[in-house]
Order: sequence, then structure tokens, then C-alpha cells
Amino acid sequence: MYIPDFFREQRPEVLWAFVAEHPLGALIAVTADGITANHIPMIWQARAGTPGVLHGHVARANPLWKALVPDTPVLAIFSGANRYITPSWYPAKADGGRLVPTWNYSVVHAHGSIRFFADRDLNLRHVSELVDRQEARRAKPWNVADAPADFINPMLSRIVSFEIVVARVIGKFKASQQRPESERRAVAAAMAAEDIPFAEREELIRLPAPP
Amino acid sequence: MYIPDFFREQRPEVLWAFVAEHPLGALIAVTADGITANHIPMIWQARAGTPGVLHGHVARANPLWKALVPDTPVLAIFSGANRYITPSWYPAKADGGRLVPTWNYSVVHAHGSIRFFADRDLNLRHVSELVDRQEARRAKPWNVADAPADFINPMLSRIVSFEIVVARVIGKFKASQQRPESERRAVAAAMAAEDIPFAEREELIRLPAPP
Repeated sequence: MYIPDFFREQRPEVLWAFVAEHPLGALIAVTADGITANHIPMIWQARAGTPGVLHGHVARANPLWKALVPDTPVLAIFSGANRYITPSWYPAKADGGRLVPTWNYSVVHAHGSIRFFADRDLNLRHVSELVDRQEARRAKPWNVADAPADFINPMLSRIVSFEIVVARVIGKFKASQQRPESERRAVAAAMAAEDIPFAEREELIRLPAPP
Repeated sequence: MYIPDFFREQRPEVLWAFVAEHPLGALIAVTADGITANHIPMIWQARAGTPGVLHGHVARANPLWKALVPDTPVLAIFSGANRYITPSWYPAKADGGRLVPTWNYSVVHAHGSIRFFADRDLNLRHVSELVDRQEARRAKPWNVADAPADFINPMLSRIVSFEIVVARVIGKFKASQQRPESERRAVAAAMAAEDIPFAEREELIRLPAPP
């Protein structure tokens, strides 16, 4: 991925937080049929001294897990908000009209090697962790144990877990960082005036942390 | 991509509209460095009797255009809203609690072959079309001609255009279509109660068209 320095994000804790916020990854692999992609929520587990491990699961009916031998290289892409940025959002006369539109977005790319595991206990652990993380935001968190066991058990046999040992990870947070802070604040205000939600604005226009 | 029948979307006009609404594509290719992805707004042009052509541009500083010989196979992924769907959103006692969470999302995958063109006029045409489409939604559309020519001209020489001749395209719109309509309406209402915007709900829970 081409990344001008302004947009490069390498701090592990920032990348981890981004993936936790945007867990649906595009899992890219190359099979005999060419480039293939599947979209799968994942959890990134830290492992001391390494870039960590991503885990998730696919339907057993998905041919992917049979097509990829252990340690096949894959790319997982995690994406946040993206939006066209019109020059109309800049302050009047900014740069004497020397402005062009752009598209802002944030992504994290994790390159690594994948292995699948047909292991019911691992499936339950992965699914439960995924659900618990999502439900933690809710007033009354739903729990895997809330569903009848005779319903959950057969479902656990219809999925296959995977782990991606991450070799390298990089973030591209394209959020107008190259523009002066005053301009960025003006653009964020113009977005607010057009009812673009706060969480989206925060990703689209990154501002310096308060001192 | 694994696609259960419920989620398969193949109608060309639906796929075209989706890409027009979500033009930032993940452009996936394989180079000597392995799987690589760049994120680029694209326009999908219909061509009679074929799946059409995607076009866009990259920075000339992006090594991608030198790495890919003409007609290299690529995958472009276009993504819409995605969100965790909690069982708590279903009507009380739906299916006697035989419910599990899921993740809904919509994507379009376009497989084809790419060619780059270092052609200033083509760059201008591509950029202008992209900008005009986005600005068409605005009360006072900004136009490429609004920026000084001595500013725009050098910028046009710093990009490289591409065209992807699309060979096959498929949509996966995972939006609870397998659930009864009454349940889907209940989930959409629960999302509305949690202030999830209308445009996002419409993609996350697809309902039958009115008769």
C-alpha cells in the first residue's frame, strides 16, 4: 500500500484499537481460482514481542478453509469511515483556491499466514469472545449461554476457526493531516453542519491530541 | 467469496448503484511482494454486452502502476455499511430463543484485468467525472475548473489513470434476508431506536420492495 508519511500509522495500540472498533476484516488470499476475499469479523490478540494473532471463523460450507494449506500467506484489511472531501468545506479563500477534492479513509492492513482448526472448543471460545466484546457495549449483554445448548452445539460444528499469525501490520489513516490545524477544524465543523456523525468526523479529519 | 443463496446479488443495475454509492474500492493485486491493496475511488462504466469497466487513478508515486504489467488480474472490493446484529434486537421469544448473533454487511466484488495509462487528458477526464458525480449532490457543486489552471495542471501529471476490464462481478448483501419479514422489521425498528441512521439500516436489513 502506498502511504505518504503524513498518513502512516504504526503505533501498535492505535492499530489494535482501530481493529477492535472495526472488526469486520476483508480476508484476502490467492487460491487456484485467483484472488479471493471473504468478509469476517476478527479479534486481534496481542502476543508479547510479536505483532500478534488474528482469529475468527468461517462457515464450514465455505471452501476457503480446504483451499488454503497451513501457513498460506493472507492479507486482512480493516476499514473505517470513508468520504469524499469537497473543497467547499475549506475556509473561504484557503490557499487562494489552490485546493482539490480528496477521499479520506482509514485502513489497517495485517499481513500474515493462516491456519484453520476444526476444533469445537476453539470455535466456542472464538465465538464467545467475539460476542462478548460486541455485547459489552449493551445495557443487557446477550450471552452465548442464553441460547439453548441443543441449538448452539450443532452450530459450532458448522464453523471452522482460523488463526492468522501476523508478520507485519500497517495503518493508513488518510485524514487531512497535511493541512493546517485551523483548516482541519473548519472542515470538521462543515461536516458537523451537514450532520455527519461525530464518530465518522473523528476518523475522517484527525486533529492533534489536546495538550 | 462464499455466498449462501439468500445473500447473492447479481442484478447489474443493483450492483452498479451500490458501487456508485460506495465508490472507494479496495484494489487487490499480487506483486513480487505478495498480496497488496490500495484504496481508490472508482467509477464503473457500463459497456453494452459486457460487465463494463472500472476506472480510477493512483498517485504517480505509488509503485503499483509500475509493478503490474498490462492485463494483470485484480480484484476490486466495494463495501457498504456493516454492523454486529445482536439477538436482543429480535422480537421477544422469536424462535424460542433459538437465535445467534451475526454480522451484516454488503459488498461487491469485481474481478478483472487492469491497465494503467499515463495520459494527462485521460487523467483530467477521470478526475472530472469523479468530482462531478460527488459534487452533484451539493447545492453549489465545486468544479475542477474552479481551481487555478497553474495549480491543476501539475497535479494531473502526478497521477496515473487505470482501467479495469471487468470479467465477472458478484454482490453479497448479507442483510438478514433469511429471517421472516416481521422479524426484519422489528430489528430495523430496534436499530432506529438506537439512532442507527436510516441509510445504514436500509443496507443492514433488506426488506422486500413495496408491491
